[in-house]
Amino acid sequence: MSNNEIPYKIYLEESEMPKAWYNVRADMKNKPAPLLNPGTLQPMTVEELSVVFCEELAKQELDNDTAFIDIPDEIKGFYKMYRPSPLVRAYCLEEKLGTPAHIYYKFEGNNTSGSHKLNSAIAQAYYAKKQGLKGVTTETGAGQWGTALSMACSYLGLDCKVFMVKCSYEQKPFRREVMRTYGASVTPSPSETTNVGRKLLAEHPGTTGSLGCAISEAVEVAVGTEGYRYVLGSVLNQVLLHQSVIGLETKAALDKYGVKADIIIGCAGGGSNLGGLIAPFMGEKLRGEADYRIIAVEPKSCPSFTRGTYAYDFCDTGMVCPLAKMYTLGSDFIPAPNHAGGLRYHGMSSTLSQLYADGYMEATSVEQTEVFKAAEYFARVEGILPAPESSHAIKVAIDEALKCKETGEAKNIVFGLTGTGYFDMYAYEAFNDGKMSDYIPTDEEIAKSLEKLPKV
Amino acid sequence: MSNNEIPYKIYLEESEMPKAWYNVRADMKNKPAPLLNPGTLQPMTVEELSVVFCEELAKQELDNDTAFIDIPDEIKGFYKMYRPSPLVRAYCLEEKLGTPAHIYYKFEGNNTSGSHKLNSAIAQAYYAKKQGLKGVTTETGAGQWGTALSMACSYLGLDCKVFMVKCSYEQKPFRREVMRTYGASVTPSPSETTNVGRKLLAEHPGTTGSLGCAISEAVEVAVGTEGYRYVLGSVLNQVLLHQSVIGLETKAALDKYGVKADIIIGCAGGGSNLGGLIAPFMGEKLRGEADYRIIAVEPKSCPSFTRGTYAYDFCDTGMVCPLAKMYTLGSDFIPAPNHAGGLRYHGMSSTLSQLYADGYMEATSVEQTEVFKAAEYFARVEGILPAPESSHAIKVAIDEALKCKETGEAKNIVFGLTGTGYFDMYAYEAFNDGKMSDYIPTDEEIAKSLEKLPKV
Repeated sequence: MSNNEIPYKIYLEESEMPKAWYNVRADMKNKPAPLLNPGTLQPMTVEELSVVFCEELAKQELDNDTAFIDIPDEIKGFYKMYRPSPLVRAYCLEEKLGTPAHIYYKFEGNNTSGSHKLNSAIAQAYYAKKQGLKGVTTETGAGQWGTALSMACSYLGLDCKVFMVKCSYEQKPFRREVMRTYGASVTPSPSETTNVGRKLLAEHPGTTGSLGCAISEAVEVAVGTEGYRYVLGSVLNQVLLHQSVIGLETKAALDKYGVKADIIIGCAGGGSNLGGLIAPFMGEKLRGEADYRIIAVEPKSCPSFTRGTYAYDFCDTGMVCPLAKMYTLGSDFIPAPNHAGGLRYHGMSSTLSQLYADGYMEATSVEQTEVFKAAEYFARVEGILPAPESSHAIKVAIDEALKCKETGEAKNIVFGLTGTGYFDMYAYEAFNDGKMSDYIPTDEEIAKSLEKLPKV
Repeated sequence: MSNNEIPYKIYLEESEMPKAWYNVRADMKNKPAPLLNPGTLQPMTVEELSVVFCEELAKQELDNDTAFIDIPDEIKGFYKMYRPSPLVRAYCLEEKLGTPAHIYYKFEGNNTSGSHKLNSAIAQAYYAKKQGLKGVTTETGAGQWGTALSMACSYLGLDCKVFMVKCSYEQKPFRREVMRTYGASVTPSPSETTNVGRKLLAEHPGTTGSLGCAISEAVEVAVGTEGYRYVLGSVLNQVLLHQSVIGLETKAALDKYGVKADIIIGCAGGGSNLGGLIAPFMGEKLRGEADYRIIAVEPKSCPSFTRGTYAYDFCDTGMVCPLAKMYTLGSDFIPAPNHAGGLRYHGMSSTLSQLYADGYMEATSVEQTEVFKAAEYFARVEGILPAPESSHAIKVAIDEALKCKETGEAKNIVFGLTGTGYFDMYAYEAFNDGKMSDYIPTDEEIAKSLEKLPKV
């Protein structure tokens, strides 16, 4: 099909939407390293995981063999409310750049959570409901994941308790109010409602909280409350599984128009978006059916792939969760305060870590001000104000398109536009005012943080 | 086609998108009353209007005869970036309400401006560019229109000067920063940059501004600066013309599935969304080809249709604009401070006013807390957090669907979901905290405000 026949936005028909998630682990020769029990250092069993997570999700977490897992009808119904998401042909961006490259982006921001997080939130809430639970607990930083989860729980009539890092709770009230509108209870963390919160408040009065503490509070409440489990929005295998819907739709849309991707680019924090976007493409690559350049983009201020170590580490600062083998900067690592976007997790999905270690994908890191320049450029040309996270991928996609301009190659570049920046306007304000700065951790800082790696 | 075959979201193909705007005035037997020169009280000519507005837009403003006006290719290209917008079948809402009614909503919020305003912003910016102008000026309250205009100007490389009511500029910095990201200059109004601003600041030091003053400043700068014109986001005939793209897409989507609307519901402030949504349906009604119940919904705190007078009035508080015949509460009327949404204009589109006076449509008004209850209900069921403005239509759509539940009628209810509430979270916070209240102006208040009607 000729180029001109590709519309600005490719929407699949409902009948073309994925009916099963794709589990890339099934096609991996080297499986991701298992989660370890932090006490025994033995691989976690479904039974052990089921204390914290819903049983079905614990099974999905450990299932390295089943390639396709049917999406339950209820979830498919929910997906139809905001999916399929468009695969956009960036005609305007191509023209502005003057590149022969063809640029496509999968836009996951057209829902009230503003990102792809909803894809896994509804799945996790569904399995909790199916297990007969009353509710779920989670933590959230700026609130993207918490918002998605509150929407999913509201839809299913499930209680949702969110621990929100206190500084965000106070300084970024908008997502907090979205969550409350969806009926979630939102507690600033650290709080007086948990042992870990009370302990921290006693030791550090006036602390504004951290993601690590919020995780610990959410896990404590989940484990200690009848009928509750804990859910997490990234990093885990189960999350990548659910997010494969992004890549499956992307591939179906490209296939529909006979387009073969050359380069696939995604931002990487914990890996949920990237893992989902690349899943079916990586599957072909693993099976030797096709080749793709796959690029993970991370911030220079939190460079787990590009400067971290591949080792077992704690998943949370509170060290209550299982150990995971991953590219990590150390569980104490916290990005500099001037770091605006998400992508602030110290580690990386075990699955993606193994794929990266095995050479199936590349990784690169970009500076914050460059990311916001790309974001502004993109917004003005393509009309969507992107999330800072997504803008990491935009920056590298533009760079690749400009390389094509030099070489004259008409490559097909696909990137993930994970969400919108509507709740990130303080960061944009800093950029607009010329007050945004970059921070790159020193080798010493990273080495110091890595000293606390568990001895496995 | 059977009901079950209608997808959750109907997206037209690009080839099915409207190629011309529809001018409902062409089918009106009683044309809307002409704009009058406030000095001479004679109908404004194109030449007179062209001092303030772009020439092509001045012509569109006065054209009561041409039924279809071709959409220029450049605008069609821009529309393809964010249109067609989906016509959503509200299956989840229907099920939750237990109604036999079929509910559809045209969702205009899936773009960074967050509303339908972009449809006219790009048209007005385009004609300004075509006329060789350097830029445009406008005013904005909370920033919806200013955001849309800044996006359109950025796309076309046109300068954009926005006067933003000072209290919004300071208290609602998010949309301000979106506008700045799109390269607009945003000035808090009143400002020291205009005569009218300086005068007001001298008389009322510390004033936080008003929409009326911001209009006056924007007009002063447009008229006094070489290569600039003033643009407006609602009320005007030209705006309703551009917004007809909403209704044309809606009708095409319904026709595609053989659905005949019974009731069409839209919120009404200045009338831009409502006028656009109903345009082709009203055309059929005017030509006697079909009948529809058409309902305008306004806030009880600013009830121009339901409690105003049909008379010539000033369009702005500063009395610098032409006089328009419309349903009005008087140009001094300002909704109570607790009024959260937009829809705060004292008057109503001349075109819609004439249609209402001639009995072609109904109007109703709803209380603020009821509107937010409907908004919350809708958000939880349909997954979209709606703008307060749009939620007026939601409230009445739900009421009509519940009437169908009583009578057992499977009516087709169509309403306009004009935008998202992501930048309205302070209002949602007040609602979530139980601090939202209603205000209904007394007859005396309205009568007092109407005392200043011009003698025409």
